[in-house]
Amino acid sequence: MRQYQIDPEKPVKLKKLDADAVGDWEGKKKAAQKQFKKLQKELADLQEILYAEQKRKVLIVLQAMDTGGKDGTIRSLLEKVNPQGVRIANFKVPSEMELAHDYLWRVHAAIPAKGEMVIFNRSQYEDVLVVRVHELVTKEVWKKRFDQINAFEKMLAEEGTTILKFYLHISKDEQKQRFLERLADPKKQWKFNPADLEERKLWDAYMDAYQDVLNKTSTAWAPWYAIPANHNWYRNLCVASIIVETLGSLQLKYPSPLQNSNQYIDFLNHEE
Amino acid sequence: MRQYQIDPEKPVKLKKLDADAVGDWEGKKKAAQKQFKKLQKELADLQEILYAEQKRKVLIVLQAMDTGGKDGTIRSLLEKVNPQGVRIANFKVPSEMELAHDYLWRVHAAIPAKGEMVIFNRSQYEDVLVVRVHELVTKEVWKKRFDQINAFEKMLAEEGTTILKFYLHISKDEQKQRFLERLADPKKQWKFNPADLEERKLWDAYMDAYQDVLNKTSTAWAPWYAIPANHNWYRNLCVASIIVETLGSLQLKYPSPLQNSNQYIDFLNHEE
Repeated sequence: MRQYQIDPEKPVKLKKLDADAVGDWEGKKKAAQKQFKKLQKELADLQEILYAEQKRKVLIVLQAMDTGGKDGTIRSLLEKVNPQGVRIANFKVPSEMELAHDYLWRVHAAIPAKGEMVIFNRSQYEDVLVVRVHELVTKEVWKKRFDQINAFEKMLAEEGTTILKFYLHISKDEQKQRFLERLADPKKQWKFNPADLEERKLWDAYMDAYQDVLNKTSTAWAPWYAIPANHNWYRNLCVASIIVETLGSLQLKYPSPLQNSNQYIDFLNHEE
Repeated sequence: MRQYQIDPEKPVKLKKLDADAVGDWEGKKKAAQKQFKKLQKELADLQEILYAEQKRKVLIVLQAMDTGGKDGTIRSLLEKVNPQGVRIANFKVPSEMELAHDYLWRVHAAIPAKGEMVIFNRSQYEDVLVVRVHELVTKEVWKKRFDQINAFEKMLAEEGTTILKFYLHISKDEQKQRFLERLADPKKQWKFNPADLEERKLWDAYMDAYQDVLNKTSTAWAPWYAIPANHNWYRNLCVASIIVETLGSLQLKYPSPLQNSNQYIDFLNHEE
């Protein structure tokens, strides 16, 4: 799955990224789903140790175009995980109070604490994506933000945060299909916002902005992964694999056993 | 399951509450677990509508002695629920900053927003439980808090929050067994805190404090349920039943269908 990691030395061209790709899993959807179920359990086990250890922090950033699958990814990733150790932070249109501060202010307030895994559903990157595409700030302002974000994430990493960033890449045609599905299903229609179609008209501008984000902010301490996301099952498999592999490499450990557990057992067995 | 609702007109005696009770499900553990799985799905469906509707707020308060099963209850309740619409708020020993404010300050900051379901793992009630038992404030101070909490919860209810409060009732002997299990299992030992044994010595004082909480703060707008919790499967069944029944009675509805969905479908089908 490391093939999807963005190497800033070899800038990615989003137009060349196949949203339909399924890697070596062509014709093996069932097997991929089975593998995913295995990863769900591994992730739950790793998260349990992360939570018990109370040392490291894990931050997972999800970005995508509308219907790109952020919600579905979160849902399936967390199905087996203890909800107590995980938090989801949603970054919607900023409030008046948030706008009165710098764009990293609300983000900083939401980062994981020790032992915590936090998933960002949208993130600081909206401030170089939607903000850029809609010209909410000047180019001079947003251009500085790539370095600012890199510096911010570097500090977080140096202070003990493991950061993984996923861009879920769907094709423009796949988005159309997903919008049509939402519009046709009374139980899904509430997810459709007419304003989404205005955003869709800006597809190419968004792709340019995403391409810059990926190439300018994929760092050793906070790598981006651009995941083919037209097939939900492959998207889930990729994201879960990368998270499990990364957490596995942290050598998380349960806290040392109690020195004097016998003393406590004795106490309990000999209460008055 | 309404039998477990505390009626302030008929004050409960905790000593008479059988923590081992399993209602009509004696010898039917398997069937109860099957019923629970059904309730998990119903809860997930109801929460989806709550989230889509963005009108009502749901607050679930969990209180229990150590090992009482708050974590396990949360985990099993939320297994099928979309993690995006649910938040867990943990109230641990208050920080210096929290202590510099009134005891409801941190609680108010954590209540559910429209469309949200929030679970309090411990709550404002710690300020009439641990605070009372350890005499961290005078009796004069904590006695006023019952009325204060009732007034606070009344305001929340009047402003659109559905509140359900659960006290998970285990016996002192069951706690002993659970502590011994934790001490014996290297993967669970981290959950054991030697200070928990000091709290255990105060068991009777805690039961008195809980009894007062239940009898003085079970209101029409924020009822308490005292759930027999020695058997996890029965505890889960009771809590889920009460939540599902309550959410079911709210007549939650998906937002009205879009008036002009055909217009959007046309747009998508006739893009240049």
